[in-house]
Amino acid sequence: MLNPVTDAFAADLRTRLPAAVFRELTPAYLEEPRGRFRGQGGLLLAPGRVEEAAEIVRACATARVGIVPYGGGTGLVGGQILEAGPAPVIVTLERMRAIRAVHADENVLVAEAGCILTEVQDAAEAAGRLFPLSLASEGSARIGGLLSTNAGGVNVLRHGNARDLCLGIEAVLPDGSILKGLKRLRKDNTGYDLRYLLIGAEGTLGLITAAALKLAPRPARTGAALLAVRDPAAALALLALARDRVGEGISAFELIHRAGFDFIAETLPDLRRPFADPPDWTVLIDLGLGAGQDPGAALEGLFAEAFEAGLVSDGLVAQSEAQRHDFWMVRESIPLANRRIGAISSHDISVPLSAIPDFIAAAGPALASIGRFRINCFGHLGDGNLHYNVFPMPGETRADHEPRRSAIKRCIHDLVVSFDGSVSAEHGIGRMKVEDLERYGDPARLAAMRAIKAALDPAGIMNPGAVLRAPS
Amino acid sequence: MLNPVTDAFAADLRTRLPAAVFRELTPAYLEEPRGRFRGQGGLLLAPGRVEEAAEIVRACATARVGIVPYGGGTGLVGGQILEAGPAPVIVTLERMRAIRAVHADENVLVAEAGCILTEVQDAAEAAGRLFPLSLASEGSARIGGLLSTNAGGVNVLRHGNARDLCLGIEAVLPDGSILKGLKRLRKDNTGYDLRYLLIGAEGTLGLITAAALKLAPRPARTGAALLAVRDPAAALALLALARDRVGEGISAFELIHRAGFDFIAETLPDLRRPFADPPDWTVLIDLGLGAGQDPGAALEGLFAEAFEAGLVSDGLVAQSEAQRHDFWMVRESIPLANRRIGAISSHDISVPLSAIPDFIAAAGPALASIGRFRINCFGHLGDGNLHYNVFPMPGETRADHEPRRSAIKRCIHDLVVSFDGSVSAEHGIGRMKVEDLERYGDPARLAAMRAIKAALDPAGIMNPGAVLRAPS
Repeated sequence: MLNPVTDAFAADLRTRLPAAVFRELTPAYLEEPRGRFRGQGGLLLAPGRVEEAAEIVRACATARVGIVPYGGGTGLVGGQILEAGPAPVIVTLERMRAIRAVHADENVLVAEAGCILTEVQDAAEAAGRLFPLSLASEGSARIGGLLSTNAGGVNVLRHGNARDLCLGIEAVLPDGSILKGLKRLRKDNTGYDLRYLLIGAEGTLGLITAAALKLAPRPARTGAALLAVRDPAAALALLALARDRVGEGISAFELIHRAGFDFIAETLPDLRRPFADPPDWTVLIDLGLGAGQDPGAALEGLFAEAFEAGLVSDGLVAQSEAQRHDFWMVRESIPLANRRIGAISSHDISVPLSAIPDFIAAAGPALASIGRFRINCFGHLGDGNLHYNVFPMPGETRADHEPRRSAIKRCIHDLVVSFDGSVSAEHGIGRMKVEDLERYGDPARLAAMRAIKAALDPAGIMNPGAVLRAPS
Repeated sequence: MLNPVTDAFAADLRTRLPAAVFRELTPAYLEEPRGRFRGQGGLLLAPGRVEEAAEIVRACATARVGIVPYGGGTGLVGGQILEAGPAPVIVTLERMRAIRAVHADENVLVAEAGCILTEVQDAAEAAGRLFPLSLASEGSARIGGLLSTNAGGVNVLRHGNARDLCLGIEAVLPDGSILKGLKRLRKDNTGYDLRYLLIGAEGTLGLITAAALKLAPRPARTGAALLAVRDPAAALALLALARDRVGEGISAFELIHRAGFDFIAETLPDLRRPFADPPDWTVLIDLGLGAGQDPGAALEGLFAEAFEAGLVSDGLVAQSEAQRHDFWMVRESIPLANRRIGAISSHDISVPLSAIPDFIAAAGPALASIGRFRINCFGHLGDGNLHYNVFPMPGETRADHEPRRSAIKRCIHDLVVSFDGSVSAEHGIGRMKVEDLERYGDPARLAAMRAIKAALDPAGIMNPGAVLRAPS
């Protein structure tokens, strides 16, 4: 069992850490974007150096006080919010915000965990490089949280998840020891890969304090198109066609349902609308090519061939960088529009690529047996990752449907698992999906996860109750 | 402490497993390519299904009998050879050799651990796809061993290591439970990534029995060139230039020292020689491009610009696929020529890319303080990975230098570590580099590795003494 943080504990820490580490715990640290979790009080600490973070973790390990790591607060599964149990120490990395080094010739950048994603993107751009991680919350999300949750986003198709973009990490392990793993090597086969274990562990195995990140060359020329496709199967065929024609130049391949456009029109009326009458299914395709290539011509050619093949019925090819930006603005505004409508239940799922049409075809009728809903299905089609979100009909509220919420979730997740899919493609488990992991997870894998957690964090201080239920 | 395998243990297993599982232990299972390790006897078992593998592991866990997993036997660090201690069970995966499924539309192939790498490459090709893992021993190495050692090879620059090519694994954990993780998802954030932990664990945390592997599109057009560069710094500048001009189309970028050509001339006189008088330093660059691109023209243009810039003094652009094959034959024959010369000490090292010229400049003089040697430095320059191998002068033998061997190794490894490099870039730790890992490894990381090993394999049966010293 853990102990609550006490005044005596805080007073003792004050003798060993600079005053700047101690912060006022404002409500912002106890809230999360969808308002599903609300944190309790606790002690907010902001280490400025890895040694200070280690001092905090050692003190918590000794006193058996829980630690909730806090990045940008943008997580959607409650991983950053501890609602109940002994009051914890909340460790925010916001003071560790340095870009420690940029090795442009090696395509490597070393950033502290508190750097906001756009800051890292900007530092890469200033060095003539690209840091390809990109997602809707990039203006707030911090590197430590992005790595701890193995964040995905729109460029996974081309560049991989956050895990794939990390060459090395510095972290504080649950005993307060410092893992000095900021290597910037492309090949290093010296034992177990703790880096990849901590990435995606959502702060339950340690506190990531810095990372060596992979950069990519900046594409010399970019382009984008919105193409109206017949159905999800046509979207997949379009993806195959695009791969044949453009190969590795496809940076993103996003599916948008008509509901996305409708929700934006309803809740964000000032946003420029690409289609007067949005198609049922649209694909946003984004290209990043070399200097000698012409993305506009490539997209026009793709459009023509896909039209000929009956896959695409209409389309817009961006005629300028500003128009490409507008296309992306629409895509990136869908989560905000969704929040304004207010989902009854949101599902961040993945299935094998070829199963996507069957999954979508089956999900609607399955939900209809529970009630009448609006569905907004959108996401990273190229990765097999859909956000399948269920909303009340106009005039109803999510509160009206609260009694049906768990049945909806169960219905979708059961279906996903029947297709060998994942019930958390990119958002993680946090505290929201602990039961799902227990229900759907492979028993041998769960047992091994628990054994690893117990071995590295025997007192269970790191992000208690996230990913794995805290032992009672 | 482990127990030796006994007749009674074998007899008991025979009551529960088909006769085909029991194999004669021929000397081939007790040898390794460089002859540095020689295995003792034991019981050779060849499971044909994952359930049979699980039965074997459960029996060994109960009886506390060690298990040595055996793939293709091509490992260079003794990971597949147990020289001393209680006689083990050797588990060869050679009967689990099925390609279970090819999902060409998803770029995924599911292979059993006993598949030889070329078989997987061929299955991918038959489906119009590429399995990009490629290395000198691809005609013997098996998928299970390649994943367990996180194999590298010549295409890491473009496609990553074995770990990066694996979407999911099936494995038997040290308690005999079956990890059912053959997912073929690009995004799955449901808890700790055990897949990436077992990959690279060299059989010490479980037995990989099958894997879902990533395929890539086959490049429509390929090309290769051998370019004579001034020195390693010029090779790096050429790499940057090539990236600017060809981008992601560079499949491999290999550095070859003159010694490589000389050793081939000395030991493989029938092999076609690309240069009458080999340059001191040569780069082999390999391109894989789309249908609309011309690799020959790209390489000629690169050559011209690099010549102009003073980076390249001479060069050959392959005029046919046969000539490209000849270039690669030279590169892939260097390891065999090295074995025929007989290295005193071989070093599979990596350093940050920009440190390569300084490392090479420092290593020669450092070795000269120990004695006079021939050096063959070659490898995967684009990955920062060099094979820095030290040979006797003509007329001398490796045996003459045996007393100096550990001083040579120590000299090179100390230098590598001073550059923040790795003393095992792609071959792993096995049993040969356990001391190096103890000497150079981060203490917090080693402690965490030992804790994970103890948690998942409390009896220490899985590949005892590999990676981590067996507890005494």
